[in-house]
Amino acid sequence: MVGAGFGGLGAARWLAQKPGIEVTLVDKRNHHLFQALLYQVASAGLNPSEIASPVRGLFRNYRNVRVIMAELTGLDAVRKIANLDGEGGLEVAYDALILSLGGETNYFGHPEWAQFAPGLKSIEQALWLRGHVLEAFEKAEKCRDEQERRRLMTIAVIGAGPTGVELSGAFAELRRHVLRWDFRDIHPELARVVLIEGGPRVLAAFPPDLSEAARRDLEGLGVEVRTGERVQEIGQGYVLTDKGRLEAHTLVWAAGVGGHPLAERLGLPTLAGGRVPVQPDLSVAGLDGVFCIGDMCFCAGADGKPLPGMAPVAMQQGPVAAANALAFLQGRPTQPFRYEDPGIMATVGRTKGVAVLGKRHISGTAGWFTWLWHHLLRIVDFQNRALVSLRWGWAYISWKWGVRLIHRGAGETQEIKES
Amino acid sequence: MVGAGFGGLGAARWLAQKPGIEVTLVDKRNHHLFQALLYQVASAGLNPSEIASPVRGLFRNYRNVRVIMAELTGLDAVRKIANLDGEGGLEVAYDALILSLGGETNYFGHPEWAQFAPGLKSIEQALWLRGHVLEAFEKAEKCRDEQERRRLMTIAVIGAGPTGVELSGAFAELRRHVLRWDFRDIHPELARVVLIEGGPRVLAAFPPDLSEAARRDLEGLGVEVRTGERVQEIGQGYVLTDKGRLEAHTLVWAAGVGGHPLAERLGLPTLAGGRVPVQPDLSVAGLDGVFCIGDMCFCAGADGKPLPGMAPVAMQQGPVAAANALAFLQGRPTQPFRYEDPGIMATVGRTKGVAVLGKRHISGTAGWFTWLWHHLLRIVDFQNRALVSLRWGWAYISWKWGVRLIHRGAGETQEIKES
Repeated sequence: MVGAGFGGLGAARWLAQKPGIEVTLVDKRNHHLFQALLYQVASAGLNPSEIASPVRGLFRNYRNVRVIMAELTGLDAVRKIANLDGEGGLEVAYDALILSLGGETNYFGHPEWAQFAPGLKSIEQALWLRGHVLEAFEKAEKCRDEQERRRLMTIAVIGAGPTGVELSGAFAELRRHVLRWDFRDIHPELARVVLIEGGPRVLAAFPPDLSEAARRDLEGLGVEVRTGERVQEIGQGYVLTDKGRLEAHTLVWAAGVGGHPLAERLGLPTLAGGRVPVQPDLSVAGLDGVFCIGDMCFCAGADGKPLPGMAPVAMQQGPVAAANALAFLQGRPTQPFRYEDPGIMATVGRTKGVAVLGKRHISGTAGWFTWLWHHLLRIVDFQNRALVSLRWGWAYISWKWGVRLIHRGAGETQEIKES
Repeated sequence: MVGAGFGGLGAARWLAQKPGIEVTLVDKRNHHLFQALLYQVASAGLNPSEIASPVRGLFRNYRNVRVIMAELTGLDAVRKIANLDGEGGLEVAYDALILSLGGETNYFGHPEWAQFAPGLKSIEQALWLRGHVLEAFEKAEKCRDEQERRRLMTIAVIGAGPTGVELSGAFAELRRHVLRWDFRDIHPELARVVLIEGGPRVLAAFPPDLSEAARRDLEGLGVEVRTGERVQEIGQGYVLTDKGRLEAHTLVWAAGVGGHPLAERLGLPTLAGGRVPVQPDLSVAGLDGVFCIGDMCFCAGADGKPLPGMAPVAMQQGPVAAANALAFLQGRPTQPFRYEDPGIMATVGRTKGVAVLGKRHISGTAGWFTWLWHHLLRIVDFQNRALVSLRWGWAYISWKWGVRLIHRGAGETQEIKES
């Protein structure tokens, strides 16, 4: 079992309850991370520890689960051995293997943009972004050059999927409600938050009426929403699109997530976008006893279209892959995976949201409550659920977001580890 | 006003309430930090944001206070101008100046030890230490070499003042109660925590009976307390003393704090240890309208001995320096500073502590409650006070310390910023 995201955790938990099964869970991080809330860390609303839980703690009471913090570096599917930590590292023999490594930010052929416009997939990136934005306001307060001040106070988010929408909404509120009262020379509430999207509408995965509602809510928060605008070039502090050049001190790439780069290095089959194609039972064709789930896999839904890289997909795949791995070990036939769409949702600031549940389209405050409820439930441990509720409740009332710390200063974006 | 520690904050608050006074508060950090609780961040008990508060937030409602995040780099005491951020930076003219920059870890002539045994003065250092210790256990779990395993699982804390005692107690509890259940191959509860002190007893500033109580409590937690042992050399993963060589993956220097290195660079007078001598009214002799308080100053107490570098001293000096600065501006005579000793206290693990309040010596559980009460009161904002109470309450009941995250991996110690 490799990867402690929603997919890997679910699979490990399912198997941990089967007598006689020994589970080894490998992850290069020591924590499970709720990536969908990373934007809250980046916008100073939450602490990293409130959306991340130590993996060992989650399996403390399962004596048949062994957790290893290590990086998968090699795979011998014939001898059934996984290599960890490269040369001189561990060799772990397996009977069945479930790969759930997640995805990585995809720059669509422009990896050099990563240094100027990082993605938002890890705690490091979120903390960097938080420090970078807060420090930009500090610099602007000291700055005497009006043009430079405007550049420092401009945030451009590229890509209007859920992450881009939620992040730009959170930054818009941060500047308008939280930072507004903190400065004397500058007016943070006038800072620009620009959301750039190549497609014709925000939240393309949602029905058009909800895209429209989300756009309205974003504009209500003062976000400049620019759809149908394609990025041509990104450099230090600017983005060039087919509509012109935008000077922005802070650039965030939320335009795409692809498969995991390790898939190719391990010799797994991959499709365009780097995802690993799986068979209906989530196994990888040609590799005996290897299953692949979550963002790293390419899994066709009932309509033949690939399932999106979202937590609910991985959460449903985990137990199915685990059951199929057990069936494989016991020589029983495996079952195909069928995705049951629990709906999709996104939040726009602290009071608005959009959600699709079955045939119902929900927007506005009701959409926000729907989002809140589902996301609180997905936080894996009780203490964090309580802390997040408390923090959100307090921030809701007071508009004092507590986590406005700059530390590690303004490191170069190159330094930030994504994974 | 430079520095947003307890001294600078107190002075700024006092002045902020005087009509007609314009206060500029400069700090190179954007947050006030409660350094005495950093050991809790290092031992995975608290989040950085729970012991740090954004400075701007604290002065949000004082319109006559301007906060600038910048580094003081030059001082022209004749023209009364402070230079910020070096060449090309800001120049700030002042009528009176209160310097409260704090202290820095003092290696007594061995600055090269800093890279092997960092101190504990900043959030970065605390996060590094947390990640370093947690990662050492992860490595030990993977390690097949018994000797290397023992080295990985050895933590040496050098210096048995309050920081050293509190840190080693917290690590002892972390390994025995929190990490104990998390691993399969290693036994974290057998990890060694060694506290090395050159003097004859721990907590030298306390009366001998309390030193003895603290030593007993530490040993009860399984800390190896070695007094009268002098450090001769520190290198990568080992410390050499007059009693022999100790192999320890984690080394922490808690043996000394000196004045601020900037004092000398600014051309201020300094004594041995780098502290700035002040006159009875906290002003610096020869510099018109300049006052100096907190850990960076050398201030004689009633008995002629220098006051220790502790929060209560800075907290009492702040308002006095502020009042004297105002008196100076108005041409009135200044008042001498008189320290009223509120007592000293230190905690040993989660249930024991020692305290001196007036003539009373308190130890054991009562000492712990005394410590708890005083430290909660000193947390500057209400939200953090509530969060810390909640987190401590939960950790007390469940022995699940929530902040066991490793991020930014095992960076080299050289990278860590102290200030």
